[in-house]
Amino acid sequence: MTPAAPEPETLSPDELRDAWPALSAEERAEGLKLLPRDTAEDLFFSISPREQVELILALPQAEQRSWVRGLAPDDAADLVQEAPTEFRDRLLGMLDDQTRREVQALLAYREDHAGGLMNPRFARLRPDMTVDEAVTYLRRQTRQSVEMTHYAYVLDSAQRLLGVVSFRELIAARGDRRVSELMKTDVRTVDADADQEVVARLFRETGLMAIPVVDAEKRMKGVVTVDDIVEVVSEEATEDIQKLGGSESLGEPYLTIALNRMIRKRAGWLAALFLGEMLTATAMGYFEHEIDRAVVLALFVPLIISSGGNSGSQATSLVIRAMALGELRLRDWFRVIRREFGAGLALGSILGAIGLTRILLWQAFFNTYGEHYLLVGLTVASSLIGVVTFGTLAGSLLPFLLRRLGFDPASASAPFVATLVDVTGLIIYFTTASAILRGTLL
Amino acid sequence: MTPAAPEPETLSPDELRDAWPALSAEERAEGLKLLPRDTAEDLFFSISPREQVELILALPQAEQRSWVRGLAPDDAADLVQEAPTEFRDRLLGMLDDQTRREVQALLAYREDHAGGLMNPRFARLRPDMTVDEAVTYLRRQTRQSVEMTHYAYVLDSAQRLLGVVSFRELIAARGDRRVSELMKTDVRTVDADADQEVVARLFRETGLMAIPVVDAEKRMKGVVTVDDIVEVVSEEATEDIQKLGGSESLGEPYLTIALNRMIRKRAGWLAALFLGEMLTATAMGYFEHEIDRAVVLALFVPLIISSGGNSGSQATSLVIRAMALGELRLRDWFRVIRREFGAGLALGSILGAIGLTRILLWQAFFNTYGEHYLLVGLTVASSLIGVVTFGTLAGSLLPFLLRRLGFDPASASAPFVATLVDVTGLIIYFTTASAILRGTLL
Repeated sequence: MTPAAPEPETLSPDELRDAWPALSAEERAEGLKLLPRDTAEDLFFSISPREQVELILALPQAEQRSWVRGLAPDDAADLVQEAPTEFRDRLLGMLDDQTRREVQALLAYREDHAGGLMNPRFARLRPDMTVDEAVTYLRRQTRQSVEMTHYAYVLDSAQRLLGVVSFRELIAARGDRRVSELMKTDVRTVDADADQEVVARLFRETGLMAIPVVDAEKRMKGVVTVDDIVEVVSEEATEDIQKLGGSESLGEPYLTIALNRMIRKRAGWLAALFLGEMLTATAMGYFEHEIDRAVVLALFVPLIISSGGNSGSQATSLVIRAMALGELRLRDWFRVIRREFGAGLALGSILGAIGLTRILLWQAFFNTYGEHYLLVGLTVASSLIGVVTFGTLAGSLLPFLLRRLGFDPASASAPFVATLVDVTGLIIYFTTASAILRGTLL
Repeated sequence: MTPAAPEPETLSPDELRDAWPALSAEERAEGLKLLPRDTAEDLFFSISPREQVELILALPQAEQRSWVRGLAPDDAADLVQEAPTEFRDRLLGMLDDQTRREVQALLAYREDHAGGLMNPRFARLRPDMTVDEAVTYLRRQTRQSVEMTHYAYVLDSAQRLLGVVSFRELIAARGDRRVSELMKTDVRTVDADADQEVVARLFRETGLMAIPVVDAEKRMKGVVTVDDIVEVVSEEATEDIQKLGGSESLGEPYLTIALNRMIRKRAGWLAALFLGEMLTATAMGYFEHEIDRAVVLALFVPLIISSGGNSGSQATSLVIRAMALGELRLRDWFRVIRREFGAGLALGSILGAIGLTRILLWQAFFNTYGEHYLLVGLTVASSLIGVVTFGTLAGSLLPFLLRRLGFDPASASAPFVATLVDVTGLIIYFTTASAILRGTLL
């Protein structure tokens, strides 16, 4: 009925993992059945929620429940969120009562907020317990929980967080000491509605393995662990890179996204940029008379505008990444202008010097540019300084403008900046040409 | 002597953290002194090794040792690696004997390999210990170690890894059970010389908190923890984004890198791209005669070449990211060609249709393009299909080519692809024009 998995008799976990991206959901389900159950579960837990859903839908109905039940509440919530709407209730119905309640609570949070990342199951202790009591108590808790971090959180009767103690510290401590003496009280927390980028930055800055999530009344609701953050950091970077490249973020692996869905995600921006780029035809039309009189000017159009585009791409990539890392904030815009103005002038002068040298050399060897070659060279060189400086400034400030207006700064993609700079670059170039060449070529 | 830190009287840790990027090393050292020692240490441990070095060099010599001694061996090794050569021996001399030996062993590994990321201190157990014996033994070990993960590793007498057991499992288990019964034997490990990208991928795929590092004889040498990997994943993405933007990776925060160093990192690629882009002037010169006869052709040059550049930027960003995530391997090149050929044709047709519509509309309203407007429109539309398809293919295949030749695929930056496509785009455009317009405009 389904296509056979590759060489089913000899399948090792590593072979399956290698072949994974190329397999259909049915083949993956077949493959999993050939592995020992615990190895298969390790693999199942490690794949993305989207892949988990596809896999479960490809399994016979009788086997679905046992896989869903193996998931921790936060992972089960991700699974439900990724599932087609009509399938969600059936998935929820497969969970035991406690987990279902926890999952439903988690589904109230946005997936990209701390509340949507957290695990609501964590080890709780009271401050007045002794270490021995705490260990006995934790032994009971660990048997109930599917997943638990390496810390126990000390809460008061209103579920407010008093401190944290690691299992390691409990092991190392004398049995008659109080939890309140052991615990670290200076605990960094995040709000349940903190954006995942903020959470990721906190992990990066602190090097912590787990951060507790609290609500507005400072009651502890769950814990985010650093292994979830690796995924987040990687996904955010993927989104930024795809947007910087001038496309919507795909949201799915390159090889498995349906071709028509990928084309739709790419066509939107490309068409929008194309519409913007049409202004270059208008601008060129405006200077048609100049081109007609001095065709030599047309020769340098691609060189000039692409230099502006390249310097803009550089600047926007650097600034967008620095923003994502939290190195740059909105209020730093003026410092960025100052830096980029200096950088733009320097880079433009370097390119201008190279361009002038090229024109002088070609003139000397091939006599390419006619009697006014020196003026043409000066036009190209000064235009380059202007265009590169403008490109650098535009590329670095556009992300600030977008963020200020509430958009994602990464939408200031390299192609977006290049398009913006192309039109302006043409105007700078032909205006410079008019000024320098009036009375000679023009 | 040093400039005063901002409002020293009222400094809170958060204020210092906020102001941090803008402060000089001297101001940071001043700021740290105003915090309670443990808060100051938390901050010190969380900053980058480069900042730690600057900070230590800004402290009075008598205070330096106590900060250096607080570092775990892997962090101390990073510190020594970042320090100026003449300062390294003095830093090593500040460590206690055991740590110094461990740091020297770590310095033998490359910083971006698993061996350079690992912590050589980890909790060791023997398989025949009971849980009670293990806990007693671990109590002794934890008191000696500065940093330890949440797992204990079970080794045989030759230091080969037999299994792993978490502190949590030890707490949950009965005291008379054997470690060998509790331990998980199916442990994922990495080789000491595995690249950090490979290590990061393994963490992403498995969701583990720590992975043991082994040498060629399978002896366990240390452990890499996921909190170090968050940094690695973030740094790798930063490098890729900066390279994709057409610059060398800065290796330092945007705001603190010296302006002349930043300009040098950006000028190299920009100048190289400029030299490549000069071929457009040569190509345009080759078609000067055509432009002279039909200036209308020049009007669409920026539109055509930028469309090729934009579609190339898209494709190269998508492919480079998919490669970094391990979704695409070298052997997938043919599948990528097939996908991108389809995508390129579709995207080119969309842009071609928009371009043709634009020309017909302008012609109807402004009579811009003369009697042969339909042929001009066809030239532009067919060139767009050709240029976008070529841009898409070039952008997606260049990363494969670079990787095959042993370069970083991320060097196939958006500007690099755009430059490549610009020259080819001109040739495609003017060749198409010659074919369609011969006998009419040309």
